[in-house]
Amino acid sequence: MSLPSESYLIGLIGDGVTPSLTPPMHEREGAAHGLLYLYRPIDLAALGLPAESVGELVRAARNLGFNGLNITHPCKQLVLAYLDEIDDDAARLGAVNTVVIRPDGTTVGHNTDWSGFLSAFRAGLPGAALGRVVQFGAGGAGSAVAYALLAAGVEHLSIVDVDGARAEERAAELAHLFPSASVEGRTTAGLASLLEAADGVVHCTPMGMAAHPGTPFDTSLLDARQWVADIVYRPIETQLVREARAIGCRVLDGGRMAVGQAVDAFRIFTGLEPDAERMRAHFLELIEREAVATAAGVR
Amino acid sequence: MSLPSESYLIGLIGDGVTPSLTPPMHEREGAAHGLLYLYRPIDLAALGLPAESVGELVRAARNLGFNGLNITHPCKQLVLAYLDEIDDDAARLGAVNTVVIRPDGTTVGHNTDWSGFLSAFRAGLPGAALGRVVQFGAGGAGSAVAYALLAAGVEHLSIVDVDGARAEERAAELAHLFPSASVEGRTTAGLASLLEAADGVVHCTPMGMAAHPGTPFDTSLLDARQWVADIVYRPIETQLVREARAIGCRVLDGGRMAVGQAVDAFRIFTGLEPDAERMRAHFLELIEREAVATAAGVR
Repeated sequence: MSLPSESYLIGLIGDGVTPSLTPPMHEREGAAHGLLYLYRPIDLAALGLPAESVGELVRAARNLGFNGLNITHPCKQLVLAYLDEIDDDAARLGAVNTVVIRPDGTTVGHNTDWSGFLSAFRAGLPGAALGRVVQFGAGGAGSAVAYALLAAGVEHLSIVDVDGARAEERAAELAHLFPSASVEGRTTAGLASLLEAADGVVHCTPMGMAAHPGTPFDTSLLDARQWVADIVYRPIETQLVREARAIGCRVLDGGRMAVGQAVDAFRIFTGLEPDAERMRAHFLELIEREAVATAAGVR
Repeated sequence: MSLPSESYLIGLIGDGVTPSLTPPMHEREGAAHGLLYLYRPIDLAALGLPAESVGELVRAARNLGFNGLNITHPCKQLVLAYLDEIDDDAARLGAVNTVVIRPDGTTVGHNTDWSGFLSAFRAGLPGAALGRVVQFGAGGAGSAVAYALLAAGVEHLSIVDVDGARAEERAAELAHLFPSASVEGRTTAGLASLLEAADGVVHCTPMGMAAHPGTPFDTSLLDARQWVADIVYRPIETQLVREARAIGCRVLDGGRMAVGQAVDAFRIFTGLEPDAERMRAHFLELIEREAVATAAGVR
Protein backbone atom coordinates (compact mmCIF):
# COMPACT_ATOMS: atom_id res chain seq x y z
CA MET A 1 0.00 0.00 0.00
CA SER A 2 1.55 3.31 -1.00
CA LEU A 3 1.16 6.47 1.08
CA PRO A 4 -0.72 9.39 -0.47
CA SER A 5 2.52 11.34 -0.97
CA GLU A 6 6.21 10.60 -0.81
CA SER A 7 7.63 11.36 2.61
CA TYR A 8 11.11 12.11 3.89
CA LEU A 9 12.37 12.10 7.46
CA ILE A 10 15.77 13.72 7.95
CA GLY A 11 17.78 14.60 11.05
CA LEU A 12 20.76 16.81 11.91
CA ILE A 13 23.15 15.37 14.51
CA GLY A 14 25.55 17.76 16.21
CA ASP A 15 26.35 19.90 19.20
CA GLY A 16 24.07 22.91 19.67
CA VAL A 17 22.13 22.38 16.44
CA THR A 18 18.74 23.36 17.85
CA PRO A 19 18.78 26.84 16.22
CA SER A 20 20.25 25.58 12.91
CA LEU A 21 18.65 27.01 9.77
CA THR A 22 19.25 23.81 7.79
CA PRO A 23 16.05 22.06 9.00
CA PRO A 24 13.65 24.85 7.94
CA MET A 25 15.56 25.30 4.64
CA HIS A 26 15.01 21.62 3.80
CA GLU A 27 11.43 21.54 5.00
CA ARG A 28 10.38 24.52 2.91
CA GLU A 29 12.14 23.18 -0.21
CA GLY A 30 10.54 19.76 0.38
CA ALA A 31 7.09 21.35 0.64
CA ALA A 32 7.73 23.26 -2.59
CA HIS A 33 8.30 19.88 -4.27
CA GLY A 34 5.03 18.52 -2.87
CA LEU A 35 6.79 16.19 -0.45
CA LEU A 36 5.91 15.39 3.14
CA TYR A 37 9.36 16.42 4.35
CA LEU A 38 10.20 16.63 8.03
CA TYR A 39 13.64 17.54 9.35
CA ARG A 40 14.54 17.27 13.04
CA PRO A 41 17.56 18.70 14.86
CA ILE A 42 19.16 16.07 17.14
CA ASP A 43 21.12 18.23 19.53
CA LEU A 44 23.81 16.40 21.51
CA ALA A 45 24.12 19.32 23.93
CA ALA A 46 20.39 19.39 24.65
CA LEU A 47 20.34 15.61 25.06
CA GLY A 48 23.46 15.53 27.22
CA LEU A 49 25.08 13.01 24.86
CA PRO A 50 28.78 12.79 23.98
CA ALA A 51 30.03 13.02 20.38
CA GLU A 52 30.80 9.28 20.52
CA SER A 53 27.07 8.50 20.61
CA VAL A 54 26.79 9.37 16.92
CA GLY A 55 27.02 5.68 15.96
CA GLU A 56 24.13 4.76 18.22
CA LEU A 57 22.09 7.70 16.91
CA VAL A 58 22.69 6.68 13.29
CA ARG A 59 21.51 3.15 14.10
CA ALA A 60 18.47 4.53 15.94
CA ALA A 61 17.61 6.80 13.01
CA ARG A 62 17.78 3.81 10.68
CA ASN A 63 15.48 1.77 12.96
CA LEU A 64 12.98 4.61 13.35
CA GLY A 65 12.46 5.23 9.64
CA PHE A 66 14.77 8.16 8.88
CA ASN A 67 15.76 8.54 5.22
CA GLY A 68 18.88 10.53 5.89
CA LEU A 69 20.98 12.59 8.27
CA ASN A 70 23.19 15.61 8.19
CA ILE A 71 26.13 15.42 10.56
CA THR A 72 27.96 18.39 11.97
CA HIS A 73 30.51 19.31 14.63
CA PRO A 74 31.84 17.33 16.51
CA CYS A 75 30.79 14.15 14.70
CA LYS A 76 31.87 14.55 11.06
CA GLN A 77 34.96 12.38 11.48
CA LEU A 78 33.59 10.02 14.15
CA VAL A 79 30.59 9.00 12.04
CA LEU A 80 32.73 7.35 9.34
CA ALA A 81 33.28 4.24 11.45
CA TYR A 82 29.53 3.55 11.58
CA LEU A 83 28.65 3.75 7.87
CA ASP A 84 28.38 0.94 5.33
CA GLU A 85 29.77 2.99 2.44
CA ILE A 86 31.52 6.35 2.01
CA ASP A 87 31.81 8.20 -1.28
CA ASP A 88 35.29 8.92 -2.66
CA ASP A 89 35.43 12.63 -1.83
CA ALA A 90 34.16 12.16 1.72
CA ALA A 91 36.66 9.34 2.23
CA ARG A 92 39.51 11.56 0.94
CA LEU A 93 38.39 14.38 3.20
CA GLY A 94 37.89 12.01 6.12
CA ALA A 95 34.66 13.83 6.94
CA VAL A 96 30.98 13.10 6.32
CA ASN A 97 28.20 15.65 6.71
CA THR A 98 25.44 13.79 4.81
CA VAL A 99 24.27 10.21 5.35
CA VAL A 100 21.73 8.50 3.13
CA ILE A 101 19.79 5.66 4.76
CA ARG A 102 18.65 3.41 1.92
CA PRO A 103 15.32 1.54 2.06
CA ASP A 104 17.24 -1.65 2.92
CA GLY A 105 18.78 0.10 5.93
CA THR A 106 22.33 0.43 4.59
CA THR A 107 24.05 3.80 5.03
CA VAL A 108 26.19 5.86 2.64
CA GLY A 109 28.27 8.85 3.70
CA HIS A 110 28.79 11.96 1.57
CA ASN A 111 30.29 15.39 2.10
CA THR A 112 28.41 18.40 0.77
CA ASP A 113 30.49 20.97 2.65
CA TRP A 114 33.13 20.95 -0.06
CA SER A 115 30.70 20.45 -2.97
CA GLY A 116 28.33 23.08 -1.55
CA PHE A 117 31.17 25.60 -1.26
CA LEU A 118 32.34 24.73 -4.77
CA SER A 119 28.96 25.26 -6.43
CA ALA A 120 28.41 28.44 -4.37
CA PHE A 121 31.86 29.68 -5.38
CA ARG A 122 31.23 28.99 -9.08
CA ALA A 123 27.80 30.60 -8.99
CA GLY A 124 28.75 33.58 -6.85
CA LEU A 125 32.23 34.37 -8.19
CA PRO A 126 32.15 33.23 -11.83
CA GLY A 127 35.52 33.45 -13.61
CA ALA A 128 37.40 34.10 -10.36
CA ALA A 129 41.18 33.95 -10.87
CA LEU A 130 42.58 30.72 -9.39
CA GLY A 131 46.33 31.28 -9.48
CA ARG A 132 47.10 32.20 -5.89
CA VAL A 133 44.63 31.94 -3.02
CA VAL A 134 45.13 32.67 0.66
CA GLN A 135 42.83 30.84 3.06
CA PHE A 136 42.44 31.75 6.73
CA GLY A 137 41.56 28.83 9.01
CA ALA A 138 42.67 25.19 8.92
CA GLY A 139 39.82 23.64 10.94
CA GLY A 140 37.09 21.30 9.74
CA ALA A 141 35.26 23.83 7.59
CA GLY A 142 38.63 25.04 6.30
CA SER A 143 39.53 21.53 5.18
CA ALA A 144 36.36 21.20 3.12
CA VAL A 145 36.81 24.66 1.59
CA ALA A 146 40.46 24.04 0.73
CA TYR A 147 39.48 20.73 -0.86
CA ALA A 148 36.89 22.56 -2.97
CA LEU A 149 39.38 25.28 -3.99
CA LEU A 150 41.93 22.70 -5.12
CA ALA A 151 39.22 20.68 -6.90
CA ALA A 152 38.24 23.94 -8.65
CA GLY A 153 41.81 24.29 -9.93
CA VAL A 154 43.58 26.68 -7.54
CA GLU A 155 47.31 26.48 -8.32
CA HIS A 156 48.92 27.90 -5.18
CA LEU A 157 47.01 27.66 -1.91
CA SER A 158 48.37 29.18 1.30
CA ILE A 159 46.55 28.01 4.43
CA VAL A 160 47.06 30.47 7.29
CA ASP A 161 46.23 29.51 10.88
CA VAL A 162 47.29 30.90 14.26
CA ASP A 163 48.20 27.25 14.91
CA GLY A 164 50.99 26.96 12.34
CA ALA A 165 51.47 23.23 12.97
CA ARG A 166 47.82 22.54 12.21
CA ALA A 167 48.06 24.59 9.03
CA GLU A 168 51.11 22.64 7.90
CA GLU A 169 49.52 19.30 8.69
CA ARG A 170 46.40 20.19 6.72
CA ALA A 171 48.48 21.51 3.82
CA ALA A 172 50.48 18.27 3.69
CA GLU A 173 47.30 16.19 3.54
CA LEU A 174 45.86 18.30 0.75
CA ALA A 175 49.14 18.39 -1.19
CA HIS A 176 49.04 14.59 -1.15
CA LEU A 177 45.48 14.57 -2.54
CA PHE A 178 46.17 17.23 -5.18
CA PRO A 179 49.76 16.60 -6.30
CA SER A 180 49.63 19.05 -9.21
CA ALA A 181 48.89 22.01 -6.91
CA SER A 182 51.22 23.68 -4.44
CA VAL A 183 49.79 23.89 -0.92
CA GLU A 184 51.54 25.46 2.06
CA GLY A 185 50.61 25.89 5.69
CA ARG A 186 51.80 28.90 7.67
CA THR A 187 51.15 31.32 10.50
CA THR A 188 50.24 34.96 10.03
CA ALA A 189 53.91 36.00 9.71
CA GLY A 190 54.65 37.70 6.39
CA LEU A 191 50.98 38.16 5.64
CA ALA A 192 51.30 41.49 3.81
CA SER A 193 53.42 40.15 0.94
CA LEU A 194 51.36 36.94 0.82
CA LEU A 195 48.12 38.91 0.39
CA GLU A 196 49.72 41.29 -2.09
CA ALA A 197 50.39 38.38 -4.46
CA ALA A 198 46.96 36.75 -4.02
CA ASP A 199 44.14 36.57 -6.57
CA GLY A 200 41.62 35.78 -3.86
CA VAL A 201 41.14 35.37 -0.13
CA VAL A 202 38.92 32.87 1.70
CA HIS A 203 38.00 33.15 5.33
CA CYS A 204 37.20 30.02 7.41
CA THR A 205 37.55 31.04 11.08
CA PRO A 206 34.83 32.24 13.50
CA MET A 207 36.03 35.88 13.24
CA GLY A 208 33.19 38.21 12.36
CA MET A 209 30.51 36.29 14.24
CA ALA A 210 28.73 38.23 16.97
CA ALA A 211 30.85 36.49 19.63
CA HIS A 212 34.08 37.09 17.69
CA PRO A 213 33.89 40.61 16.28
CA GLY A 214 36.54 41.94 13.91
CA THR A 215 38.27 40.80 10.73
CA PRO A 216 40.86 38.00 10.41
CA PHE A 217 43.41 40.44 8.95
CA ASP A 218 43.89 44.15 8.20
CA THR A 219 41.58 44.67 5.22
CA SER A 220 43.58 47.69 4.04
CA LEU A 221 45.90 45.02 2.60
CA LEU A 222 43.15 44.11 0.07
CA ASP A 223 43.04 45.39 -3.48
CA ALA A 224 40.01 45.83 -5.72
CA ARG A 225 41.28 43.23 -8.24
CA GLN A 226 40.96 40.48 -5.58
CA TRP A 227 37.93 38.40 -4.70
CA VAL A 228 36.99 37.62 -1.09
CA ALA A 229 34.93 34.70 0.19
CA ASP A 230 33.69 34.41 3.78
CA ILE A 231 32.02 31.36 5.34
CA VAL A 232 30.65 33.18 8.40
CA TYR A 233 26.93 33.86 7.87
CA ARG A 234 25.74 35.15 11.22
CA PRO A 235 25.65 38.03 10.38
CA ILE A 236 25.39 37.56 6.63
CA GLU A 237 27.19 40.91 6.14
CA THR A 238 30.38 40.39 8.16
CA GLN A 239 32.83 43.19 8.74
CA LEU A 240 35.19 41.44 6.26
CA VAL A 241 32.52 41.27 3.55
CA ARG A 242 31.52 44.87 4.13
CA GLU A 243 35.07 46.27 4.04
CA ALA A 244 36.12 44.13 1.07
CA ARG A 245 33.09 45.30 -0.89
CA ALA A 246 33.88 48.94 0.01
CA ILE A 247 37.37 48.46 -1.43
CA GLY A 248 35.79 47.18 -4.64
CA CYS A 249 36.46 43.44 -4.30
CA ARG A 250 33.98 40.89 -5.61
CA VAL A 251 32.65 39.06 -2.52
CA LEU A 252 30.96 35.78 -1.66
CA ASP A 253 29.11 35.85 1.66
CA GLY A 254 29.00 32.87 4.03
CA GLY A 255 25.36 32.21 3.33
CA ARG A 256 26.36 30.83 -0.06
CA MET A 257 28.19 27.85 1.46
CA ALA A 258 25.48 27.28 4.09
CA VAL A 259 22.88 27.12 1.35
CA GLY A 260 25.17 25.16 -0.98
CA GLN A 261 25.63 22.27 1.45
CA ALA A 262 21.86 22.13 1.97
CA VAL A 263 21.15 22.26 -1.77
CA ASP A 264 23.49 19.34 -2.41
CA ALA A 265 22.18 17.34 0.56
CA PHE A 266 18.56 17.85 -0.56
CA ARG A 267 19.48 16.53 -4.01
CA ILE A 268 21.22 13.49 -2.49
CA PHE A 269 18.33 12.72 -0.12
CA THR A 270 15.51 13.06 -2.64
CA GLY A 271 17.02 12.63 -6.10
CA LEU A 272 15.18 15.83 -7.01
CA GLU A 273 16.79 19.04 -8.24
CA PRO A 274 16.36 21.75 -5.59
CA ASP A 275 15.88 25.38 -6.58
CA ALA A 276 19.11 26.90 -5.22
CA GLU A 277 17.92 30.50 -5.62
CA ARG A 278 14.67 29.75 -3.77
CA MET A 279 16.63 28.10 -0.95
CA ARG A 280 18.97 31.11 -0.82
CA ALA A 281 16.01 33.51 -0.62
CA HIS A 282 14.45 31.46 2.17
CA PHE A 283 17.77 31.31 4.01
CA LEU A 284 18.12 35.12 3.89
CA GLU A 285 14.56 35.44 5.16
CA LEU A 286 15.36 33.11 8.08
CA ILE A 287 18.58 34.99 8.89
CA GLU A 288 16.68 38.28 8.84
CA ARG A 289 13.89 36.92 11.05
CA GLU A 290 16.48 35.57 13.48
CA ALA A 291 18.32 38.92 13.57
CA VAL A 292 15.08 40.75 14.34
CA ALA A 293 14.24 38.26 17.10
CA THR A 294 17.74 38.56 18.58
CA ALA A 295 17.54 42.36 18.50
CA ALA A 296 14.23 42.12 20.33
CA GLY A 297 15.79 39.83 22.93
CA VAL A 298 13.65 36.87 21.84
CA ARG A 299 15.09 33.51 20.85
CA MET B 1 13.31 30.70 15.94
CA SER B 2 9.97 29.09 15.19
CA LEU B 3 9.44 26.83 12.21
CA PRO B 4 7.07 27.99 9.49
CA SER B 5 4.45 25.42 10.54
CA GLU B 6 3.86 23.19 13.51
CA SER B 7 5.30 19.73 12.92
CA TYR B 8 4.61 16.32 14.44
CA LEU B 9 6.70 13.18 14.19
CA ILE B 10 4.94 10.02 15.34
CA GLY B 11 5.87 6.33 15.18
CA LEU B 12 4.12 2.97 15.53
CA ILE B 13 6.13 0.26 17.30
CA GLY B 14 5.01 -3.34 16.88
CA ASP B 15 5.44 -6.63 15.10
CA GLY B 16 4.48 -6.59 11.42
CA VAL B 17 3.19 -3.01 11.42
CA THR B 18 4.56 -2.08 8.00
CA PRO B 19 1.14 -2.35 6.28
CA SER B 20 -0.78 -0.67 9.14
CA LEU B 21 -3.38 1.87 8.09
CA THR B 22 -2.84 3.98 11.21
CA PRO B 23 0.13 5.95 9.76
CA PRO B 24 -1.71 7.17 6.63
CA MET B 25 -4.84 7.90 8.69
CA HIS B 26 -2.86 10.20 10.98
CA GLU B 27 -0.87 11.80 8.17
CA ARG B 28 -3.96 12.72 6.16
CA GLU B 29 -5.76 14.11 9.22
CA GLY B 30 -2.64 16.08 10.16
CA ALA B 31 -2.44 17.56 6.67
CA ALA B 32 -6.13 18.52 6.88
CA HIS B 33 -5.25 20.53 10.00
CA GLY B 34 -2.40 22.28 8.18
CA LEU B 35 0.26 20.45 10.16
CA LEU B 36 3.54 18.99 8.94
CA TYR B 37 2.63 15.54 10.29
CA LEU B 38 4.78 12.50 9.57
CA TYR B 39 4.04 9.04 10.95
CA ARG B 40 6.51 6.16 10.58
CA PRO B 41 5.91 2.42 11.16
CA ILE B 42 8.70 0.91 13.27
CA ASP B 43 8.35 -2.78 12.47
CA LEU B 44 10.10 -5.11 14.90
CA ALA B 45 9.77 -8.03 12.45
CA ALA B 46 11.35 -6.08 9.60
CA LEU B 47 14.13 -4.84 11.91
CA GLY B 48 14.72 -8.28 13.45
CA LEU B 49 14.25 -6.84 16.94
CA PRO B 50 12.64 -8.61 19.93
CA ALA B 51 9.63 -7.18 21.76
CA GLU B 52 11.95 -6.34 24.67
CA SER B 53 13.67 -3.67 22.57
CA VAL B 54 10.62 -1.40 22.99
CA GLY B 55 12.30 0.48 25.85
CA GLU B 56 15.35 1.24 23.76
CA LEU B 57 13.15 2.32 20.84
CA VAL B 58 11.13 4.68 23.05
CA ARG B 59 14.36 6.26 24.27
CA ALA B 60 15.66 6.54 20.70
CA ALA B 61 12.40 8.14 19.55
CA ARG B 62 12.72 10.69 22.33
CA ASN B 63 16.32 11.49 21.35
CA LEU B 64 15.48 11.79 17.66
CA GLY B 65 12.68 14.31 18.06
CA PHE B 66 9.52 12.18 17.98
CA ASN B 67 6.44 13.77 19.57
CA GLY B 68 4.66 10.52 20.23
CA LEU B 69 4.30 6.80 19.58
CA ASN B 70 1.60 4.27 19.15
CA ILE B 71 2.47 0.86 20.58
CA THR B 72 0.93 -2.39 19.47
CA HIS B 73 1.40 -6.14 19.79
CA PRO B 74 3.59 -7.49 21.41
CA CYS B 75 4.76 -4.40 23.33
CA LYS B 76 1.65 -2.89 24.95
CA GLN B 77 2.41 -4.36 28.37
CA LEU B 78 6.22 -4.31 28.12
CA VAL B 79 6.34 -0.58 27.39
CA LEU B 80 4.90 0.41 30.78
CA ALA B 81 8.24 -0.13 32.51
CA TYR B 82 9.92 2.52 30.34
CA LEU B 83 7.49 5.42 30.77
CA ASP B 84 7.67 8.33 33.20
CA GLU B 85 3.90 8.52 33.73
CA ILE B 86 0.87 6.38 32.90
CA ASP B 87 -2.71 7.62 32.90
CA ASP B 88 -5.19 5.96 35.27
CA ASP B 89 -7.09 3.92 32.70
CA ALA B 90 -3.93 2.62 31.01
CA ALA B 91 -2.51 1.72 34.43
CA ARG B 92 -5.73 -0.14 35.34
CA LEU B 93 -5.67 -1.97 32.01
CA GLY B 94 -1.95 -2.63 32.31
CA ALA B 95 -1.58 -1.76 28.63
CA VAL B 96 -0.41 1.33 26.77
CA ASN B 97 -0.95 1.94 23.06
CA THR B 98 -0.22 5.68 22.96
CA VAL B 99 2.86 7.47 24.32
CA VAL B 100 3.21 11.23 24.39
CA ILE B 101 6.79 12.52 24.38
CA ARG B 102 6.66 15.98 25.95
CA PRO B 103 8.98 18.79 24.83
CA ASP B 104 11.08 18.19 27.98
CA GLY B 105 11.55 14.55 26.94
CA THR B 106 9.33 12.97 29.59
CA THR B 107 6.89 10.28 28.45
CA VAL B 108 3.25 9.64 29.33
CA GLY B 109 1.38 6.44 28.49
CA HIS B 110 -2.28 6.30 27.49
CA ASN B 111 -4.62 3.66 26.11
CA THR B 112 -6.94 4.63 23.27
CA ASP B 113 -7.95 1.06 22.43
CA TRP B 114 -10.62 1.13 25.11
CA SER B 115 -11.55 4.80 24.69
CA GLY B 116 -11.56 4.42 20.90
CA PHE B 117 -13.88 1.44 21.10
CA LEU B 118 -16.09 3.28 23.58
CA SER B 119 -16.55 6.36 21.44
CA ALA B 120 -17.03 4.19 18.33
CA PHE B 121 -19.61 2.12 20.22
CA ARG B 122 -21.51 5.20 21.39
CA ALA B 123 -21.45 6.79 17.93
CA GLY B 124 -22.21 3.64 15.96
CA LEU B 125 -24.73 1.94 18.27
CA PRO B 126 -26.47 4.79 20.10
CA GLY B 127 -28.88 3.66 22.82
CA ALA B 128 -27.64 0.05 22.69
CA ALA B 129 -29.07 -2.01 25.57
CA LEU B 130 -26.36 -2.66 28.18
CA GLY B 131 -27.94 -5.28 30.45
CA ARG B 132 -26.28 -8.48 29.24
CA VAL B 133 -23.38 -8.63 26.81
CA VAL B 134 -21.46 -11.65 25.53
CA GLN B 135 -17.90 -11.01 24.38
CA PHE B 136 -15.83 -13.49 22.38
CA GLY B 137 -12.08 -13.29 22.97
CA ALA B 138 -10.08 -12.57 26.13
CA GLY B 139 -6.81 -11.44 24.55
CA GLY B 140 -5.27 -7.98 24.54
CA ALA B 141 -7.86 -6.35 22.31
CA GLY B 142 -10.58 -8.18 24.24
CA SER B 143 -9.33 -6.71 27.52
CA ALA B 144 -9.57 -3.17 26.19
CA VAL B 145 -13.03 -3.77 24.73
CA ALA B 146 -14.33 -5.37 27.93
CA TYR B 147 -12.96 -2.42 29.91
CA ALA B 148 -14.81 -0.06 27.58
CA LEU B 149 -18.06 -2.04 27.84
CA LEU B 150 -17.92 -2.00 31.64
CA ALA B 151 -17.01 1.70 31.64
CA ALA B 152 -20.05 2.25 29.39
CA GLY B 153 -22.26 0.61 32.02
CA VAL B 154 -22.74 -3.01 30.93
CA GLU B 155 -24.28 -4.85 33.89
CA HIS B 156 -23.53 -8.49 33.08
CA LEU B 157 -20.53 -9.28 30.91
CA SER B 158 -19.71 -12.84 29.83
CA ILE B 159 -16.25 -13.27 28.38
CA VAL B 160 -16.02 -16.40 26.22
CA ASP B 161 -12.67 -17.83 25.15
CA VAL B 162 -11.53 -21.24 23.93
CA ASP B 163 -8.98 -20.88 26.73
CA GLY B 164 -11.44 -20.93 29.63
CA ALA B 165 -8.72 -20.24 32.23
CA ARG B 166 -7.66 -17.10 30.39
CA ALA B 167 -11.27 -15.95 30.21
CA GLU B 168 -11.73 -16.48 33.94
CA GLU B 169 -8.51 -14.69 34.79
CA ARG B 170 -9.48 -11.69 32.66
CA ALA B 171 -12.99 -11.66 34.15
CA ALA B 172 -11.58 -11.67 37.68
CA GLU B 173 -9.33 -8.69 36.89
CA LEU B 174 -12.21 -6.73 35.39
CA ALA B 175 -14.61 -7.64 38.21
CA HIS B 176 -12.06 -6.17 40.59
CA LEU B 177 -11.92 -2.92 38.58
CA PHE B 178 -15.71 -2.65 38.16
CA PRO B 179 -17.15 -4.03 41.41
CA SER B 180 -20.72 -2.97 40.63
CA ALA B 181 -20.86 -5.12 37.46
CA SER B 182 -20.96 -8.90 37.20
CA VAL B 183 -18.24 -10.34 34.98
CA GLU B 184 -17.75 -14.01 34.23
CA GLY B 185 -15.21 -15.94 32.16
CA ARG B 186 -16.19 -19.15 30.38
CA THR B 187 -15.61 -21.50 27.47
CA THR B 188 -18.04 -21.97 24.62
CA ALA B 189 -20.05 -24.57 26.57
CA GLY B 190 -23.70 -23.54 27.01
CA LEU B 191 -23.40 -20.83 24.40
CA ALA B 192 -26.93 -21.10 23.02
CA SER B 193 -28.68 -20.09 26.24
CA LEU B 194 -26.04 -17.46 26.98
CA LEU B 195 -26.64 -15.80 23.60
CA GLU B 196 -30.39 -16.12 23.91
CA ALA B 197 -30.35 -13.92 27.03
CA ALA B 198 -27.92 -11.34 25.57
CA ASP B 199 -28.70 -7.76 24.55
CA GLY B 200 -25.53 -7.58 22.48
CA VAL B 201 -22.55 -9.54 21.25
CA VAL B 202 -18.99 -8.33 20.79
CA HIS B 203 -16.37 -10.20 18.83
CA CYS B 204 -12.64 -9.85 19.68
CA THR B 205 -10.88 -12.86 18.09
CA PRO B 206 -9.15 -13.09 14.68
CA MET B 207 -12.09 -15.11 13.21
CA GLY B 208 -13.34 -13.54 10.01
CA MET B 209 -9.97 -12.27 8.83
CA ALA B 210 -8.81 -13.62 5.48
CA ALA B 211 -6.48 -16.07 7.24
CA HIS B 212 -9.18 -17.18 9.68
CA PRO B 213 -12.44 -17.47 7.69
CA GLY B 214 -15.76 -18.17 9.38
CA THR B 215 -17.71 -16.81 12.32
CA PRO B 216 -16.91 -17.24 16.02
CA PHE B 217 -20.31 -18.90 16.66
CA ASP B 218 -23.38 -20.10 14.81
CA THR B 219 -25.05 -16.84 13.79
CA SER B 220 -28.47 -18.52 13.58
CA LEU B 221 -28.41 -18.09 17.36
CA LEU B 222 -28.73 -14.30 16.86
CA ASP B 223 -31.98 -12.38 17.04
CA ALA B 224 -32.90 -9.11 15.35
CA ARG B 225 -33.32 -7.30 18.72
CA GLN B 226 -29.61 -7.80 19.48
CA TRP B 227 -26.69 -5.58 18.48
CA VAL B 228 -23.41 -7.04 17.22
CA ALA B 229 -19.97 -5.42 17.29
CA ASP B 230 -16.93 -6.85 15.51
CA ILE B 231 -13.36 -5.62 15.87
CA VAL B 232 -12.01 -7.40 12.77
CA TYR B 233 -11.68 -4.89 9.93
CA ARG B 234 -9.83 -6.78 7.19
CA PRO B 235 -12.28 -7.26 5.53
CA ILE B 236 -14.48 -4.48 6.85
CA GLU B 237 -17.55 -6.60 6.04
CA THR B 238 -16.82 -9.81 7.95
CA GLN B 239 -19.02 -12.87 7.63
CA LEU B 240 -20.28 -12.12 11.16
CA VAL B 241 -21.22 -8.53 10.29
CA ARG B 242 -22.88 -9.62 7.06
CA GLU B 243 -24.93 -12.42 8.63
CA ALA B 244 -25.91 -10.35 11.67
CA ARG B 245 -27.08 -7.52 9.44
CA ALA B 246 -29.11 -10.00 7.31
CA ILE B 247 -30.85 -11.18 10.48
CA GLY B 248 -31.73 -7.55 11.23
CA CYS B 249 -29.27 -6.80 14.04
CA ARG B 250 -27.74 -3.36 14.41
CA VAL B 251 -24.02 -3.81 13.73
CA LEU B 252 -20.75 -2.04 14.44
CA ASP B 253 -17.95 -3.01 12.07
CA GLY B 254 -14.32 -3.38 13.20
CA GLY B 255 -13.25 -0.28 11.35
CA ARG B 256 -15.01 1.80 14.00
CA MET B 257 -12.58 0.74 16.73
CA ALA B 258 -9.55 1.02 14.40
CA VAL B 259 -10.54 4.56 13.58
CA GLY B 260 -11.58 5.33 17.17
CA GLN B 261 -8.14 4.53 18.60
CA ALA B 262 -6.55 6.72 15.93
CA VAL B 263 -9.00 9.58 16.54
CA ASP B 264 -8.24 9.56 20.26
CA ALA B 265 -4.48 9.25 19.72
CA PHE B 266 -4.48 12.16 17.25
CA ARG B 267 -6.28 14.31 19.82
CA ILE B 268 -3.78 13.32 22.52
CA PHE B 269 -0.75 13.96 20.30
CA THR B 270 -1.85 17.33 18.92
CA GLY B 271 -4.42 18.76 21.32
CA LEU B 272 -6.59 19.35 18.25
CA GLU B 273 -10.04 17.87 17.66
CA PRO B 274 -9.86 15.40 14.77
CA ASP B 275 -12.77 14.98 12.37
CA ALA B 276 -13.81 11.39 13.18
CA GLU B 277 -16.06 11.07 10.14
CA ARG B 278 -13.32 12.29 7.81
CA MET B 279 -10.88 9.79 9.34
CA ARG B 280 -13.47 7.03 8.95
CA ALA B 281 -14.00 7.92 5.27
CA HIS B 282 -10.27 7.91 4.66
CA PHE B 283 -9.91 4.59 6.47
CA LEU B 284 -12.59 2.99 4.28
CA GLU B 285 -10.84 4.36 1.20
CA LEU B 286 -7.53 2.83 2.36
CA ILE B 287 -9.18 -0.53 3.09
CA GLU B 288 -10.80 -0.50 -0.35
CA ARG B 289 -7.53 0.41 -2.08
CA GLU B 290 -5.75 -2.35 -0.18
CA ALA B 291 -8.45 -4.90 -1.12
CA VAL B 292 -8.14 -3.96 -4.80
CA ALA B 293 -4.34 -4.24 -4.63
CA THR B 294 -4.57 -7.62 -2.87
CA ALA B 295 -7.05 -8.88 -5.47
CA ALA B 296 -4.63 -7.77 -8.20
CA GLY B 297 -1.78 -9.60 -6.44
CA VAL B 298 0.03 -6.36 -5.62
CA ARG B 299 1.09 -5.36 -2.14
